[in-house]
Amino acid sequence: MWMETKMEVEEASRSHASRSHASLSRRGLKSLLLCTGDMEHLDKYIQDKSFVLQLAVWGLRGVTRVILANNPLSGALILAALYWASPWQGLLGTLGVLVSTLTAVVIGQDRCDVAGGLHGFNGMLVSLLMGVFSSAGDWYWLLLLPVCLGSATCVFLFSGISTLLDRWDLPAAVFPFNIIIILYLLCTGPNNPYFPHHPATPPGTLESNITDLIAVEVMRGIPLGVGQIFACEVLGPSLLILGAVCLYSPLLAVHALLGSAVGTLAGLSMAVRHESLYSGLSGFNGALGCMSVGGLFFTFSWRTHLFAIACAFLSAYADIALGNLMGTVGLPACSWAATLTVTLMLLLTGSLAPYRIPIGQVMAPEQNLRSRSQWEAGNTEERASTDL
Amino acid sequence: MWMETKMEVEEASRSHASRSHASLSRRGLKSLLLCTGDMEHLDKYIQDKSFVLQLAVWGLRGVTRVILANNPLSGALILAALYWASPWQGLLGTLGVLVSTLTAVVIGQDRCDVAGGLHGFNGMLVSLLMGVFSSAGDWYWLLLLPVCLGSATCVFLFSGISTLLDRWDLPAAVFPFNIIIILYLLCTGPNNPYFPHHPATPPGTLESNITDLIAVEVMRGIPLGVGQIFACEVLGPSLLILGAVCLYSPLLAVHALLGSAVGTLAGLSMAVRHESLYSGLSGFNGALGCMSVGGLFFTFSWRTHLFAIACAFLSAYADIALGNLMGTVGLPACSWAATLTVTLMLLLTGSLAPYRIPIGQVMAPEQNLRSRSQWEAGNTEERASTDL
Amino acid sequence: MWMETKMEVEEASRSHASRSHASLSRRGLKSLLLCTGDMEHLDKYIQDKSFVLQLAVWGLRGVTRVILANNPLSGALILAALYWASPWQGLLGTLGVLVSTLTAVVIGQDRCDVAGGLHGFNGMLVSLLMGVFSSAGDWYWLLLLPVCLGSATCVFLFSGISTLLDRWDLPAAVFPFNIIIILYLLCTGPNNPYFPHHPATPPGTLESNITDLIAVEVMRGIPLGVGQIFACEVLGPSLLILGAVCLYSPLLAVHALLGSAVGTLAGLSMAVRHESLYSGLSGFNGALGCMSVGGLFFTFSWRTHLFAIACAFLSAYADIALGNLMGTVGLPACSWAATLTVTLMLLLTGSLAPYRIPIGQVMAPEQNLRSRSQWEAGNTEERASTDL
Repeated sequence: MWMETKMEVEEASRSHASRSHASLSRRGLKSLLLCTGDMEHLDKYIQDKSFVLQLAVWGLRGVTRVILANNPLSGALILAALYWASPWQGLLGTLGVLVSTLTAVVIGQDRCDVAGGLHGFNGMLVSLLMGVFSSAGDWYWLLLLPVCLGSATCVFLFSGISTLLDRWDLPAAVFPFNIIIILYLLCTGPNNPYFPHHPATPPGTLESNITDLIAVEVMRGIPLGVGQIFACEVLGPSLLILGAVCLYSPLLAVHALLGSAVGTLAGLSMAVRHESLYSGLSGFNGALGCMSVGGLFFTFSWRTHLFAIACAFLSAYADIALGNLMGTVGLPACSWAATLTVTLMLLLTGSLAPYRIPIGQVMAPEQNLRSRSQWEAGNTEERASTDL
Repeated sequence: MWMETKMEVEEASRSHASRSHASLSRRGLKSLLLCTGDMEHLDKYIQDKSFVLQLAVWGLRGVTRVILANNPLSGALILAALYWASPWQGLLGTLGVLVSTLTAVVIGQDRCDVAGGLHGFNGMLVSLLMGVFSSAGDWYWLLLLPVCLGSATCVFLFSGISTLLDRWDLPAAVFPFNIIIILYLLCTGPNNPYFPHHPATPPGTLESNITDLIAVEVMRGIPLGVGQIFACEVLGPSLLILGAVCLYSPLLAVHALLGSAVGTLAGLSMAVRHESLYSGLSGFNGALGCMSVGGLFFTFSWRTHLFAIACAFLSAYADIALGNLMGTVGLPACSWAATLTVTLMLLLTGSLAPYRIPIGQVMAPEQNLRSRSQWEAGNTEERASTDL
Repeated sequence: MWMETKMEVEEASRSHASRSHASLSRRGLKSLLLCTGDMEHLDKYIQDKSFVLQLAVWGLRGVTRVILANNPLSGALILAALYWASPWQGLLGTLGVLVSTLTAVVIGQDRCDVAGGLHGFNGMLVSLLMGVFSSAGDWYWLLLLPVCLGSATCVFLFSGISTLLDRWDLPAAVFPFNIIIILYLLCTGPNNPYFPHHPATPPGTLESNITDLIAVEVMRGIPLGVGQIFACEVLGPSLLILGAVCLYSPLLAVHALLGSAVGTLAGLSMAVRHESLYSGLSGFNGALGCMSVGGLFFTFSWRTHLFAIACAFLSAYADIALGNLMGTVGLPACSWAATLTVTLMLLLTGSLAPYRIPIGQVMAPEQNLRSRSQWEAGNTEERASTDL
């Protein structure tokens, strides 16, 4: 759909049609196109606006960074989806993204990184997961204490890990979130008087009363896998989140669904708990792995598409393995599997490496494709050596 | 107190007072000042002395390196404190520091590192902890075998890890100790016929008979936290160790106490076992974290002071988390938390980074301050760019 | 024996003997020498042959890479030994090495690495261990699925880890195998309906009925330790594998036996299960550690020989420790201990570092010695600075 509109726009601009209704529809399409992708033009617009407005945009970008997108409008849609699924979770997420973005400003992190939302998404994830694992119920105000502390700490970890991984041009990604949530759960333990939480159930746990798999429920788990990236288990909001990704980049949305399906397949092949499949927990690591390789960190092509599927399988199997390991001490595997697998893919030599986009230049997949074709049009000679 | 004497000395040297009693007191103060800080002048003095004397000085420097200091006199005081607390532990510590320093000489490690005591402190810590965890009682001579082997192995790990971390100008710190002691405890296991040991109790363990916290005992835990860096649980020797740190650098001693207090506070907020608070085990990771950031690896200023407190909190919470994790297999968390947190702080970008001192130039906090102000006096232009 | 024949050959070539029987024996010796070492001349010979023949040679080189050798004839001998011990295991190993080598070709890995067998050995090890741990018995065809998937994944990990470790000129070694087999065992778990497996028994497990150690059995464990590198527990095939190593390099074979003996000694000192000692499981990490340092990655000399023994001890003790740790969740320690210890040794500064051979120039120990003496004959001045 997106591709069609895009082609239409290009065609329209080529033909220089002067009829009024074409001009009207063109204007509508153009304003739609302005809302997709990275929306870089917004940064110039808010440059001289108030700090609160800037913080809101940075925060919304941070919200989308969780799902590898970078678009304030998508962020608003996702936030709406989270408030729809659970107002308490929505509040925790908002607080997390704001606290960590503010902390980054206070401890003097790079202004560009802050404006790009890079310091918000880990804090948001930590807050959401603290809420999900808490066994004290919703509106347990004492939880805001670890939420603020954990979100703030994410900035320290993001900055430190970035320096460490910078040697290989690797992103810190969600390593900080994965570390902080594990430390928080370990620190409090299941019987903590102030911050009690549920222990995680490993995916390989044997079920007491084995029932037949319900195919419809498994199918439902695939879009839920996209929602699970935000720890959201409700179908409606999950679809809204998927829509938000589609607004940023349809290619990314397709890979999210594909990855979630691959993850579900991997879960089936390893006979994981039915609950894992139904809730989308089996799919979300596959989705993250598939999105990262299929268009985001690598220029899209059929070869990267195949690697994206391989990455989804690896992420999904690694997630089952890590889930079983960490489940022995009651911990969840979070998104360790996808984060590690994508890091591995970024390090790969061979036929995937030439498609890699330097971390500093990563944009929406469609934009990545366009930058590459522009660049290739310029240097036709180099193109051959890169493709081989 | 130290600052006052220092100012007095400077004042005295400025006024060129010729009265005899002033001259006498000045001489006394000068000789006191010669005993504080890194005592670099001693290195020149012992250069052409016998190997045994050199080894003794290297060893004493190694003893203080455990608590981030570097002063042979402090080392002698600390060693006295250890022998006071338990002669067997004192013997183990002495053996550990000598064996690892000698191993470093034998396998040809850098002469400067050896002379600075960098190859002694990990061996000493391994030996002390082997003694503490041994359930065979004092004067169990067979323990000297793993003590010697473990101390010697520390040198291999220190050298290897230094090469690894050198890329980011990070110190190997106590990583070797933490690795070796964990491997030793895993290797022997609780039922080993030759080297039995107590399993560690995680800080989050529920207590059978819950009693009220005794405030005085908790307060006592704060100075004990400084002693716990040497696995010493007696108040007198702990205060002597604190005194030894004060001799090296009063600023470091203040941060040690502050960090221990922060650690105790973190322990209280997570409702850890009372025994952890009383014995100072909750405080020592906080103390190490606070000392490292507050003046040692970063030039002292109000900003680094605040970061030091943040680092103490992070170290203390991470210690509780790791203690609970490693306690599930009966292992202690040692000083993993502080070591990892300080490594993270050293990697941080933003407003802390300009205060960082390159690892090769780290000295006593007061000396660091002086070097920086001298350097800043020379380049006033650069100062502005660094402070912002 | 090898050294004698070599000297004989050189002597013969110097004297230019013209008698026919001497000429005959010389020709025999020369053709024997052609089969030892790295057999680089073979690469030129097969360059223009069919892909199947090339793949076979690459695969056989991959088989020997497991035991740190690189010689297609040794590979054939080892494969024969595996088929002799168990045809099913032989089949799995063959499949593993072929699948991972083919995957490397498909995803465009460096041609030289593929030809050197660097992409085969991890896949082979994964396949062999999957077979050993499977509790479904021999000829369980469903196992070929994870065998193929696991072997293929090894190539991804090898490529990624190589990029990571390249900064310190470290080899990826068997890290990929160790990671993949642990993930596979975690992923399936002991009760998986499709891929059930035995849990591993940690070496420190207490035995119910303690019997006296049988000295002959312990001695038998030493050559078995060499076979255990290929997960082979039968004496005959183990000796054949040792013979294959001897064909590649007698020095390496001596170090393999020595390392296995050191590992058994370490096991005795820690009172591990008798079964560990009898089966050679205590020895194989020591053997790998000893082989790596004694001649392969470092030029052979008395100093490296002593370091090799130290490395064997470290590997063996670390293996017991890791075995006990990973045994708590039913996992084997595989060759983590040896891999980590050898990596540490390669990072070491001091008196071992000057003997280190850059990873790209590592060949058979005897060849390493010759290259070094040739190089040293050229630059006599530099020699002094390197030896000190």
